[in-house]
Amino acid sequence: MKRILVDMDGVLADIFPRFFELHEKETGQRLQMRDIEGLVEADAFPNQRKWVSAPGFFRDLPVMQGSHEALKKLNDKFHIIVVSLATEFPNSLTDKQLWIHEHFPFITWQQIVFCGNKNILQADIMIDDHPKNLDIFPGETIMFTQPVNIHISNSRHRRADSWAEIEKILLP
Amino acid sequence: MKRILVDMDGVLADIFPRFFELHEKETGQRLQMRDIEGLVEADAFPNQRKWVSAPGFFRDLPVMQGSHEALKKLNDKFHIIVVSLATEFPNSLTDKQLWIHEHFPFITWQQIVFCGNKNILQADIMIDDHPKNLDIFPGETIMFTQPVNIHISNSRHRRADSWAEIEKILLP
Repeated sequence: MKRILVDMDGVLADIFPRFFELHEKETGQRLQMRDIEGLVEADAFPNQRKWVSAPGFFRDLPVMQGSHEALKKLNDKFHIIVVSLATEFPNSLTDKQLWIHEHFPFITWQQIVFCGNKNILQADIMIDDHPKNLDIFPGETIMFTQPVNIHISNSRHRRADSWAEIEKILLP
Repeated sequence: MKRILVDMDGVLADIFPRFFELHEKETGQRLQMRDIEGLVEADAFPNQRKWVSAPGFFRDLPVMQGSHEALKKLNDKFHIIVVSLATEFPNSLTDKQLWIHEHFPFITWQQIVFCGNKNILQADIMIDDHPKNLDIFPGETIMFTQPVNIHISNSRHRRADSWAEIEKILLP
């Protein structure tokens, strides 16, 4: 059974609506997706590190459209590991895990990893939005479209704009 | 640079004094190390799962004798990853990471992994007390002596009774 590393933020958790909301609340400026194209989150939103460091931030994020149904199907055919680079923000850890259990109850605690570098994980396939993770992964890569990667083309990563597209790639 | 997976509970964190203390408080029975030889923690202490599920339990555990100095030296020569099978107890995660940062400040957040199964991690050496982790690790293994492994002999794992012994093995 092939093992898939599935990223959380921006892939399972729809984090950008919350960032836009908080940015508008704190600055009065309503940003659009096109304003932050090509930027990592910390550059797109100057207060992002403060937001994600606070307890509670990750506990009630919206779920990415279609991710629940797709991951449930994939979980029957693959060894799914949900993985988050979360140790940069220690207060996020418990919130993130409780969020996974609430929204993806078929993912067991044995299928969750919180770490500081994904390059120590052995797997066959990676689904992620960050080129920094995808570029160093030796296996098959699926790049989930988000502002940070929108201008990247001609890479070895297969692009998916939605979970429906991920399903088409992995469950043809 | 070789990568070493270093376990937390029973290896960096001296967890047994706390278990004995709580067991005596709740049952009136003062156990000794010899009473729990060969047993996993949950069998040795009937209330163990309740204790470790509670927020705060892992935040103020004593540090294993000699571990700070030894890990600091090893951290200069090896790629150290501190890893804990912590996702079974989501409330433990933030406490565990803050504990690492307090007692081992030279270990960065990039060097920490919380997971549910160590078999997805790529490394050269594993230091652990639990045979369930050591037995499935394909690399070099150092078995840190604790009650759970005290009767195991003739295995492929090198035994270390202390951090001084780990230093002798890895920094000869």
